[in-house]
Amino acid sequence: MSAIITLTTDFGLADAYVAAMKGVILTINPEAKIVDICHNIKPQNVSGAAFVLSTAYRYFPRKTIHVVVVDPGVGTERRAIILRTPAADFVAPDNGVLSYVMPDHSEIRPRREMVAITNQRFWRSPVSATFHGRDIFAPVAAHLSLGASLADFGEKITSLKTLPLPRPQRSKDGSLIGHIIHVDSFGNLITDVRQDDLPRGEVTIEAGGKTISGLSRTYAGGKGLLALIGSGGYLEVALREGSAGAFLNAHSGDEVIIKTRR
Amino acid sequence: MSAIITLTTDFGLADAYVAAMKGVILTINPEAKIVDICHNIKPQNVSGAAFVLSTAYRYFPRKTIHVVVVDPGVGTERRAIILRTPAADFVAPDNGVLSYVMPDHSEIRPRREMVAITNQRFWRSPVSATFHGRDIFAPVAAHLSLGASLADFGEKITSLKTLPLPRPQRSKDGSLIGHIIHVDSFGNLITDVRQDDLPRGEVTIEAGGKTISGLSRTYAGGKGLLALIGSGGYLEVALREGSAGAFLNAHSGDEVIIKTRR
Amino acid sequence: MSAIITLTTDFGLADAYVAAMKGVILTINPEAKIVDICHNIKPQNVSGAAFVLSTAYRYFPRKTIHVVVVDPGVGTERRAIILRTPAADFVAPDNGVLSYVMPDHSEIRPRREMVAITNQRFWRSPVSATFHGRDIFAPVAAHLSLGASLADFGEKITSLKTLPLPRPQRSKDGSLIGHIIHVDSFGNLITDVRQDDLPRGEVTIEAGGKTISGLSRTYAGGKGLLALIGSGGYLEVALREGSAGAFLNAHSGDEVIIKTRR
Repeated sequence: MSAIITLTTDFGLADAYVAAMKGVILTINPEAKIVDICHNIKPQNVSGAAFVLSTAYRYFPRKTIHVVVVDPGVGTERRAIILRTPAADFVAPDNGVLSYVMPDHSEIRPRREMVAITNQRFWRSPVSATFHGRDIFAPVAAHLSLGASLADFGEKITSLKTLPLPRPQRSKDGSLIGHIIHVDSFGNLITDVRQDDLPRGEVTIEAGGKTISGLSRTYAGGKGLLALIGSGGYLEVALREGSAGAFLNAHSGDEVIIKTRR
Repeated sequence: MSAIITLTTDFGLADAYVAAMKGVILTINPEAKIVDICHNIKPQNVSGAAFVLSTAYRYFPRKTIHVVVVDPGVGTERRAIILRTPAADFVAPDNGVLSYVMPDHSEIRPRREMVAITNQRFWRSPVSATFHGRDIFAPVAAHLSLGASLADFGEKITSLKTLPLPRPQRSKDGSLIGHIIHVDSFGNLITDVRQDDLPRGEVTIEAGGKTISGLSRTYAGGKGLLALIGSGGYLEVALREGSAGAFLNAHSGDEVIIKTRR
Repeated sequence: MSAIITLTTDFGLADAYVAAMKGVILTINPEAKIVDICHNIKPQNVSGAAFVLSTAYRYFPRKTIHVVVVDPGVGTERRAIILRTPAADFVAPDNGVLSYVMPDHSEIRPRREMVAITNQRFWRSPVSATFHGRDIFAPVAAHLSLGASLADFGEKITSLKTLPLPRPQRSKDGSLIGHIIHVDSFGNLITDVRQDDLPRGEVTIEAGGKTISGLSRTYAGGKGLLALIGSGGYLEVALREGSAGAFLNAHSGDEVIIKTRR
């Protein structure tokens, strides 16, 4: 049965852990179309995976099944869950890795469903205590793609663990304090500031001790350091034909200050 | 509709930019078969992407659609184009990234077609000024794979931007001056010297201050540093079970001198 | 004809060598489903590829064709071979890269078949002396996936080259000396010690000058350095939320000593 299953993990590309998951999926559903979202999430970086997933899932067809295995608690009491939304299904550990997906759908909260994966019928046997990606998440996603109903996998639950997501804050002097939430592989600094958060009028952006005047429209539209609204809708700081992250020695969590220009 | 679409980008594998493109393609054409050519092109390295593409496209079936997104000018006035050749279709920014593909087909120049992508009907909306890969190139390639005709995408054009490609030169003393055009991940130094460029008889090759006598047939066929005609038809300098690039501290653009042995 | 072909190489992801192989396969069998096992095997590391392959192949459907191209002897007299087992087919150079696959099937030795790939009918022409992955292994795998019989590819052979695989040894004082056979991308140290090799009762594990008391069940189940039976069934040394490899400066080949706790 044709279906798209995506994979997001921190397994890297130097081992065969991802391939083992693909083999398990294809053994159960040979027609599954498996797409890699990212396997270079930093080890155990749940919030990083949550963000990267959020930049991709919305571009896939409805009914896509997104499997996320960034799972420092594998083998412990943390739950394994399925989240069904009108946009897609998500199969993941209940550790906050779906945090960016949940609020997205707050307006359709009544239409989302969640189950804890407890029915071992769909698992590989025996289950390794250290590799639920292969032994639980992959076979569950494959059976889901074959049409198994949510109730087949376990009991309904009413909430998931979510991470506190960074949001820009207003400081006393009226400036907006944003935070870098992701440094991409170009070295672009993606912040938690959305277009709507920006004050009206001309702004200056302070990052890593440097000040940028105004927003550019494109990466080629400024000289040196520049700021723009990136493709995910967030304010980004970039360096023309270079890495802003390296240039400013900036990292996730660092502050970015937006002021209205006088 | 079954069709092969390949992707070549400088997006790296630590983000979900490539996956977003795949999601867009599969939303439009769920039957598309997407193959990665390379996503580790150095950021904004248009000539590097042009070369890497040239080493792969000819091995794909005819009618394959090759999408290349190494695009430092994204969002600016640079054109987005489709090049149709008897070998394949190419969808890319008009920045020279198809330079190695164009001369290949000079003999069939009358049979190639080019359009500027201007018809927004096939684009995602709104279009991000920073991610045409997702919002223009991916949906255009997907609609092309569904059978849209070239004319649907925009007006015919008669030339593309091309980069000056390095070619070996003859020096006054009769030796041949070649250039390293690519250092592969083994550290092999691939030059712009083709078999036909080599002088007849026994040659010596000077690279990074070292001299190699004669050509080997295989990587295992010499001791230490060796030279051979690689799988792309170019003269390569290699180090047996090591990296010639690291050993010689050699880089793209460096000269390699070929002399006839006396 | 639908069929799964997996690829394991040391080609890395910064070039288009892997893509060239995929293009060749899809030109011959457009229905082939190609799955990457790993392309980041260290250059020419035959035993590393042998191990990584062994951690993945058993999870794929029967009749999967596994192509392995870690091939320092490409173009020399080393044979190219096909190994057929009840679990899968393997297409590879005869350099020991299938060593972990062979003993697995010792119980079914009578049911395995091997041929030397000598019939050039299925090769690309001309064959590059440096890239048999593209010109021999890929087209052979593709034709195999279309149903060609083993005998079509060359004459039957009765043995393959195998590497001496590390096995734990008993020392004079009764302790067990294991060896690190792989450091994965989390920095987990995977040893050649299987559950069955372990002495009964409580054990201590010495690695990199540190001593670990007892086995944990999960990566989250210990503090700091810990030992457990990993997902492949081997004893692993891990560092909670860190890299044991970096912490202990440990590498493949290093010894790990298991003692019974008194």
